[in-house]
Amino acid sequence: MKHATKIDHIAFAVKNLEESLHFYEAVLGLEVTHRETIEAEKIKVAFVRIGESFIELMEPTSEDSFVARSMKKHGQGFAHLCFATQSVDRIKDRIDEEGLMTLGDVREGAEGRRVLFLHPKDNAGVLTEFSEQAEDE
Amino acid sequence: MKHATKIDHIAFAVKNLEESLHFYEAVLGLEVTHRETIEAEKIKVAFVRIGESFIELMEPTSEDSFVARSMKKHGQGFAHLCFATQSVDRIKDRIDEEGLMTLGDVREGAEGRRVLFLHPKDNAGVLTEFSEQAEDE
Repeated sequence: MKHATKIDHIAFAVKNLEESLHFYEAVLGLEVTHRETIEAEKIKVAFVRIGESFIELMEPTSEDSFVARSMKKHGQGFAHLCFATQSVDRIKDRIDEEGLMTLGDVREGAEGRRVLFLHPKDNAGVLTEFSEQAEDE
Repeated sequence: MKHATKIDHIAFAVKNLEESLHFYEAVLGLEVTHRETIEAEKIKVAFVRIGESFIELMEPTSEDSFVARSMKKHGQGFAHLCFATQSVDRIKDRIDEEGLMTLGDVREGAEGRRVLFLHPKDNAGVLTEFSEQAEDE
């Protein structure tokens, strides 16, 4: 059974959202479909559509946001990879069966979708998110 | 004009290819479509299909491969992001017009495709590849 149907998005931490968007918009000719400031995480984000997926760019709005602290340690760049899945509960069951570790439980993420994060240690250092959505979305 | 049509693949450096494949195959239920040992780069790779894209996993076969040296410095995880493009020459022109830096020139990559790499400094730390292919591939 296939528990991941597509790459929903790849998230990158950036120092300057507008500068990074210039690359995606003016150089690559892609379209920004959504912008948001997420107060709880102290970041502003933009989503760029690319085929069936999105690139999420995240710029911290405060020095003490998780993204700012992570960038201080690792620099700009890759933050997480998110797969679309038809059932977060089913992938949660598989993760539990395999004895893998999640970061917290299933919760409500962007656009009210149910999401779950896998600890990066259980996917070769890659922070991995699952986002529930119908296959034809 | 849109110079990138989809995410072709995301590449991750891993210590143990078989262990990482267990996650993609047994946990997520995805399919490995291609395996190869690339002698020139001293890596073995596997491609896992996910929607219209692929995950490329790269395990070094020697301590002195570029991937091994990079992992020593940065650990396992994200290596590069590759966009499909209909014309590598057109994206090369845009990159030159913007004064961005490529890593080498257009060359022949996997499966004989024409590829070009953008220096990570010009996309917020993200090593970015372009791979030429028709939109309907």
